[in-house]
Amino acid sequence: MTPEVLFWLVPLASLIALGFAAIFFFNMKKADEGTDRMKEIAGYVREGAMAYLKQQYKVVGVVFAIIAVIFCIMAYFGMQNNIVPVAFLTGGFFSGLAGFIGMKTATYASGRVAQACRDEQDGLNKGLKLAFRSGAVLGLTVVGFGLLDISAWYLILDNTGLIDAQGIDKLVQITTIMLTFGMGASLQALFARVGGGIYTKAADVGADLVGKTEYHFNEDDPRNPATIADNVGDNVGDVAGMGADLYESYAGSILASAALGAAAVAGMGGTYDEGIKMVMAPMIIGAVGAILSVLGIFIVRTKQGANQTELMAALNRGINFSSVLIAIAAAGILNVLGIENWLGLWGSIVIGLVVGIAIGKVTEYYTSFEFKPVKFIAENATTGPATVIISGIGVGMISTCWPVIFIVLGTIGAYLCATGSFVFSAENMSMGLYGIGIAAVGMLSTLGLTLATDAYGPISDNAGGNAEMSELGESVRSRTDALDALGNTTAATGKGFAIGSAALTALALLASYIEEIKMAALHYGESFKASFFSTETINSAELAKMNIAEFMAKFDVTLMNPKVLLGIFVGAMLSFLFCGLTMNAVGRAAKSMVEEVRRQLSDKDVFEGRKKADYARCVGISTQGAQREMIVPSMIAVIVPIATGLIMGVPGVFGLLAGGLAGGFVLAVFMANSGGAWDNAKKYIETGDADFCGKHTPVHDASVVGDTVGDPFKDTSGPSLNILIKLMSMVSIVTAGLNVAFSLL
Amino acid sequence: MTPEVLFWLVPLASLIALGFAAIFFFNMKKADEGTDRMKEIAGYVREGAMAYLKQQYKVVGVVFAIIAVIFCIMAYFGMQNNIVPVAFLTGGFFSGLAGFIGMKTATYASGRVAQACRDEQDGLNKGLKLAFRSGAVLGLTVVGFGLLDISAWYLILDNTGLIDAQGIDKLVQITTIMLTFGMGASLQALFARVGGGIYTKAADVGADLVGKTEYHFNEDDPRNPATIADNVGDNVGDVAGMGADLYESYAGSILASAALGAAAVAGMGGTYDEGIKMVMAPMIIGAVGAILSVLGIFIVRTKQGANQTELMAALNRGINFSSVLIAIAAAGILNVLGIENWLGLWGSIVIGLVVGIAIGKVTEYYTSFEFKPVKFIAENATTGPATVIISGIGVGMISTCWPVIFIVLGTIGAYLCATGSFVFSAENMSMGLYGIGIAAVGMLSTLGLTLATDAYGPISDNAGGNAEMSELGESVRSRTDALDALGNTTAATGKGFAIGSAALTALALLASYIEEIKMAALHYGESFKASFFSTETINSAELAKMNIAEFMAKFDVTLMNPKVLLGIFVGAMLSFLFCGLTMNAVGRAAKSMVEEVRRQLSDKDVFEGRKKADYARCVGISTQGAQREMIVPSMIAVIVPIATGLIMGVPGVFGLLAGGLAGGFVLAVFMANSGGAWDNAKKYIETGDADFCGKHTPVHDASVVGDTVGDPFKDTSGPSLNILIKLMSMVSIVTAGLNVAFSLL
Repeated sequence: MTPEVLFWLVPLASLIALGFAAIFFFNMKKADEGTDRMKEIAGYVREGAMAYLKQQYKVVGVVFAIIAVIFCIMAYFGMQNNIVPVAFLTGGFFSGLAGFIGMKTATYASGRVAQACRDEQDGLNKGLKLAFRSGAVLGLTVVGFGLLDISAWYLILDNTGLIDAQGIDKLVQITTIMLTFGMGASLQALFARVGGGIYTKAADVGADLVGKTEYHFNEDDPRNPATIADNVGDNVGDVAGMGADLYESYAGSILASAALGAAAVAGMGGTYDEGIKMVMAPMIIGAVGAILSVLGIFIVRTKQGANQTELMAALNRGINFSSVLIAIAAAGILNVLGIENWLGLWGSIVIGLVVGIAIGKVTEYYTSFEFKPVKFIAENATTGPATVIISGIGVGMISTCWPVIFIVLGTIGAYLCATGSFVFSAENMSMGLYGIGIAAVGMLSTLGLTLATDAYGPISDNAGGNAEMSELGESVRSRTDALDALGNTTAATGKGFAIGSAALTALALLASYIEEIKMAALHYGESFKASFFSTETINSAELAKMNIAEFMAKFDVTLMNPKVLLGIFVGAMLSFLFCGLTMNAVGRAAKSMVEEVRRQLSDKDVFEGRKKADYARCVGISTQGAQREMIVPSMIAVIVPIATGLIMGVPGVFGLLAGGLAGGFVLAVFMANSGGAWDNAKKYIETGDADFCGKHTPVHDASVVGDTVGDPFKDTSGPSLNILIKLMSMVSIVTAGLNVAFSLL
Repeated sequence: MTPEVLFWLVPLASLIALGFAAIFFFNMKKADEGTDRMKEIAGYVREGAMAYLKQQYKVVGVVFAIIAVIFCIMAYFGMQNNIVPVAFLTGGFFSGLAGFIGMKTATYASGRVAQACRDEQDGLNKGLKLAFRSGAVLGLTVVGFGLLDISAWYLILDNTGLIDAQGIDKLVQITTIMLTFGMGASLQALFARVGGGIYTKAADVGADLVGKTEYHFNEDDPRNPATIADNVGDNVGDVAGMGADLYESYAGSILASAALGAAAVAGMGGTYDEGIKMVMAPMIIGAVGAILSVLGIFIVRTKQGANQTELMAALNRGINFSSVLIAIAAAGILNVLGIENWLGLWGSIVIGLVVGIAIGKVTEYYTSFEFKPVKFIAENATTGPATVIISGIGVGMISTCWPVIFIVLGTIGAYLCATGSFVFSAENMSMGLYGIGIAAVGMLSTLGLTLATDAYGPISDNAGGNAEMSELGESVRSRTDALDALGNTTAATGKGFAIGSAALTALALLASYIEEIKMAALHYGESFKASFFSTETINSAELAKMNIAEFMAKFDVTLMNPKVLLGIFVGAMLSFLFCGLTMNAVGRAAKSMVEEVRRQLSDKDVFEGRKKADYARCVGISTQGAQREMIVPSMIAVIVPIATGLIMGVPGVFGLLAGGLAGGFVLAVFMANSGGAWDNAKKYIETGDADFCGKHTPVHDASVVGDTVGDPFKDTSGPSLNILIKLMSMVSIVTAGLNVAFSLL
């Protein structure tokens, strides 16, 4: 079959994924909502979540409108293709829509999951299935919209007169322009992650600090005024935020690989027929992965009274099934496409899958209380909160070692496999980078399923909240707890995929920046200056013909160029600045929350449950806090790469991106793992397994401090860095034309 | 005057510095030691410190012996100059000796300072002068030995037949070989910082957690068994560790600049006469700075009853005086040497001075309770320890922004000034890098004085400890407290110089690595492979003629080379791993200490002061903990650069160093500033200035948690990173021959 025919698998898979998402959604809606009290609680959470999202999209809408206008102006002055503003908007729109649908589903589902768990016969299995399939709505929506956006743009650009080129050049231009819709998705994702992360942790920290520490309430006690905000936060941060994040990674990895493939073939003087295979490969692998994910979803089921291990096994069966099948299918796809080095590229894909799983396993080792690191932190709780914090930070920092080694080995492996060679050289660089990109595609190919296991977590968490607030009794709560505990482990795996794919995608995007600069140069004129402050003139036509190594030498993007070195410094610093701003944002919003909760609980009637707590005020505090605080960090991610490009030119941008990527990756792993480890150290102490354990002891109190500090680590700052890494690359790519144009002033 | 004549200023200044150090030492020894109880306490601290240092030097001696043997083997096989093992050992020896003398002085001085403070008439002034001049012993010893080692080696290499070259080539070889003694100094410094840092914080955290938090003892209560270990720790970490660290920066910046100067002139085809000026300039500036530091020391004095501001003014007067004079003198030196672009280089030196001061000011802003950030953390103590930690981490992360911007602007400025141009280009790169190196020399030129203000801190701290344990009464303690509080502020400035100079020196060292590779290649044969896994052959003679940009292009050290990118990842990760290991080391040692202190205080006789606490056991715990725990992190810093060089070749090493430098710098600033801010947030709460303040309240307890977490941040992990940054460069430089040789296998 020709690649052109196989391409139709992409829109087809998109429709299948979206179709099943719709089926799962409507099936879930048919499930019993439970008692009036349960409906009431679910209604509060749903209202709060929708109110937040409405507010969020308003702010984001304004930002998008402003940026789109700027892009239109740039396009008008020829600094950019006319299609970019539209592509930017669609990326943002679909990313937001996927988050919206996922969250809508989650807020409808959680009450129903609690109701399903009330079934004494088959409650656990029913609950698992309902929660998981509701999570799958998010997974399949993300994948479906991603493939839809990609295939629609490809069809438009390929079949209309918008691209003024032929053959392989047309392919390069199509794929490079399509990349820019990634920026819209990235920016939407950053707002979702940062805003959602601040929201959820302000509520969580506020609820815990007063409710748990001062009043010794249980989790989700209905008297705690911040409870609803806390439950809303799970949806806002972990569903909508995570969805937007991975939508971006998913689309980004496919688009970056396609662009790299076209560029690699063009660079080697290849033809359109060779190029189209490389462009189609990542798209079709994504499409087949989406279909396999649907199959995997149907495999997940368990029996009543299943323990943690059996529940985990149920989820793992689905993931393993899809992973093995996609590995096999990928070999077939590459063969059918007739790619010469199909075995090598297949190796890259498998490496991507393995690295994702390996990072997930390391994450599990450092954050699960089955293993030494978390137990070590728990032991340190016996000497008070200070040693809990010190050991948690120590463990988190040490935990960065293996993920970096995996990424390094995976990158080397994917590169060399794709080139079919044992050495790096200037000649095979394009193909090697394509290998890195397609490894990311492999890692994310079963996203429909892995994201389902991720979104399943907050749904179960909320189901537990609903059960507690509706006072459904111990046995129901124990079932929702079992589902929730499982969600914490799958979240670790999900984070491995999120950060691993971000690193690989960002590495691949570096190469796309080169193509953008070349295109902008050709578009702009015969020659231009290397940067505003440079005296060197660069010939556009010559530049276009250079391979990557020559391009880098021409711009002197070497590690002794001060602009590169200083760019690396700024990039590394930016990750820290970004985290510092988001940490303090959570701190400030949490402080307002604490004050409000204290104020309400000082009313004896509220404390003793005779008067209903004012949930809406707490929801309002989180919403406003998140909206106010998300602007500055997000804008830094947009403005700094542009400013660096204008002032320091191409070498500065490369330094910034490399420094931001390496620094951001390590910092993200550290924060996510420290946070996860603290959370589970507390849970370990609550199990009472060791002699120093037990609830409401000083040791437990010390561990709660760790857990509270870990909240913004693992759910606000850490995951936002994934997107920061990619967004900075995307911004640089989209504004490459500005660099070139500015140098001519 | 010829540069050769001016050179004699260097040994002369060394003798002057060492002479005054001796005078200050013997004058201090003549001061009254106070009561028998005071002598007894001082004796304990002195014994503990010396016992630790003896143990430390034993372990370090073994490591040095092993490495020296390896170097001898490498030299035997021609991978290295025969002089390297000897130079390595002298660097380590002088660094250790400077630390030893500084600590000896500090432990003799602190009791005498306490005694001086007992003078009701002139106690504060007497105490300040005695403490400060005792601190100056460390400052002048470091500077004196640094200049001595440099001048002795220069004379030996220049006047004996050890160097087999003539003219400018000889100069290049001399300066490049001299650099290797920096590795000895670096390694000694790392052991001192890591070992000392673990020692001091294990004792401090242990003493605070039980003594202050559980028993509500005051600081330095004699009943607390860890008190002596805590006081010993100040000497071990802050005197010996800081001294070794800055010895290394001082010598490293002078040697790196000299090597860069020679290489720059050789690269432009210049003569010996031009080269010698560039080589001498940093040495002579260092020499004149040392003499001016002695003058500055004599200016520091104050009046009785001086407040904090007046005390600070006294110290600042000395520093400002020396800084202004060295700025003026530098212009004269460059003129007398007859350097063509003297004005430009003078600009670089002044920029170095200004950047050091600017980073110090930022550090002060983020860590002093006069300003908003620390007050913000203190306010967060009202909602418990978790928000103290969150806000402290947030503030620390944000605080990395300005130091990075200053380093970036300073580097650009120093580079461009030195080249006398407005643009970066391949041609002016050598001169630009020389400018960066000499900026570091400028920053550290008044080290004799700035280090005196640094070492003054722990001496005053110990004086306070002695006063408390000897029960000298409130008025004496209030005077030692005033001296101590001042020490905390000057420590901030000192840290600015330490980290700022580390960054600039490490940047300059990158260029020296290139020279080493060139020399090794020439030495080794006509051609060699780019790396073990490479197929490309490099011609040694051609390589030797390349300028920096050409060299980098030849090895493809660009940011799209996967080896470079992955090196950056590993470098960034290494900083985190290193910090994680040292954090956990402190945690473990502190835990043993807590258990020991609890055990002793459970004896009612000890708790009520009837039975003397067993100080020696606590000293032993810290000593053993530090020795056991310092090996692994230190060896990582040695082994990883060597392994990277062997496996990934020159591009991998450059990536590693750049990633480690940027990541390590940012992480170091974050950790130092978070730690300092927590410390002072606690102090702010103790002042009672705001309505939520006051000792022994829950708010204060929350702030003590922050302070305890901050201890290893600011005194173990953070400052050790300064050295990690430089040591990795030094190791790469010294083992460059191994890279080249291995590629030939």
